[in-house]
Amino acid sequence: MRIEIIPVEGLPLIRKGDDLAAMIAALVPLQDGDILCLASSVYSKAHGHTRPLASIEPGERARDIGRRCGEDPRFMQAVLDESTEVLIDHPFLLTCLAHGHVGVRAGVDQSNIEDGQLILLPPDPNAAADGIRHGIASAAGADVRVIITDTCGRSFRRGQTGIAIGWSGMTAIQDYRGDTDLFGHVLKITEEAVVDEIAGFANFVMGESNRGVPAVVFRNCPVWKGHDSLYFNADEDITRNALKKWNE
Amino acid sequence: MRIEIIPVEGLPLIRKGDDLAAMIAALVPLQDGDILCLASSVYSKAHGHTRPLASIEPGERARDIGRRCGEDPRFMQAVLDESTEVLIDHPFLLTCLAHGHVGVRAGVDQSNIEDGQLILLPPDPNAAADGIRHGIASAAGADVRVIITDTCGRSFRRGQTGIAIGWSGMTAIQDYRGDTDLFGHVLKITEEAVVDEIAGFANFVMGESNRGVPAVVFRNCPVWKGHDSLYFNADEDITRNALKKWNE
Repeated sequence: MRIEIIPVEGLPLIRKGDDLAAMIAALVPLQDGDILCLASSVYSKAHGHTRPLASIEPGERARDIGRRCGEDPRFMQAVLDESTEVLIDHPFLLTCLAHGHVGVRAGVDQSNIEDGQLILLPPDPNAAADGIRHGIASAAGADVRVIITDTCGRSFRRGQTGIAIGWSGMTAIQDYRGDTDLFGHVLKITEEAVVDEIAGFANFVMGESNRGVPAVVFRNCPVWKGHDSLYFNADEDITRNALKKWNE
Repeated sequence: MRIEIIPVEGLPLIRKGDDLAAMIAALVPLQDGDILCLASSVYSKAHGHTRPLASIEPGERARDIGRRCGEDPRFMQAVLDESTEVLIDHPFLLTCLAHGHVGVRAGVDQSNIEDGQLILLPPDPNAAADGIRHGIASAAGADVRVIITDTCGRSFRRGQTGIAIGWSGMTAIQDYRGDTDLFGHVLKITEEAVVDEIAGFANFVMGESNRGVPAVVFRNCPVWKGHDSLYFNADEDITRNALKKWNE
């Protein structure tokens, strides 16, 4: 069966208090089983997860990191405020967030918002996805699945890609344990991060900059079974431990 | 415009010498501008990039790594033979390949092939993509774009995702330098690894194990401009240097 990808076009600039679910449902006739990908920046603007840069008083650590990274110390303070652990503090600030995501600048961004404002990631991205899902059910009567996306760099490969930071109505990981291959062998590779694969393509369809497509609908996708342990624990992630040691 | 994703269903088990481009063109009516994603494993089987495990004589380093990682030393020798540099040799073997890709076990795999055989990555994945592209032009008269995909782990996040190892008819990176956001600000985030975002979703549609869908067609995708420097140089990649130091 063919999968259809529908860019949600025609959303205005989002302001605090906007009902995103109803606005999206009015633009695309959603169906049961659709997967809706939504850019975290748009969710955060609608829900007021923003900060005026001028209101931030940087502490000593933020000033030190700002000097070392060549960044505004108020921006660095906002990143520290969003973070539970600093992995490296130069040449860029890479931290872990409460929900498990590891990212440069904790996903704090200054794009597509008024001058002097910062957009933060939603503090509980899975709850954000739940909220959008229930909003779509109320507005359109459709039982959709939802992924909240962000854009993020990675190791070894240049360029950012879309990733999932929150999801609802699906598991993050597809688990193949016990499945067999075409020759009947039990698979050794057993876990596929399908929410990230979907979020990445959504990011491609959204585009950066001024295309103005912060939401994308996926129709006729396969369903899967698995679990939600998307993030490595600190003690099992070789890269995380190597970076911390390197940064000491 | 809606994007359509068409799984290529009905391919038989691929054998050395099979004309993959003609076989795919016979199953899906391809159109100019389509993006065809093809699993590297299937390309390698058609082109004989495989090795019988029993024929491999492990050297001292492969035997040492096999002991430390709990792996077959012949498999470790095959990985070393594919690699230009070892980044870490425990708890798993992570290496760099000649074309720039960094991956665990250098992408050498034992899934979906007869017992005792290893599938290697195509030695020149961009040339592989070129070959498929020209094969499609000959078989179907369509000017398609091609991505050769593999499945690969990553830092910080559990689960593998599809990535691009070769591409033809497009650039790997979409470059936004000089573009402005919705508020007219010049973008700081300028490079998006679109081939990986497309390869990831293709991997989701292919599925692992026994679904038997090693090729996926993307229709009506946006076009983009950019460059092909998908891989960080050794000296600019923090993770690579941190891992090497950690492993010493």
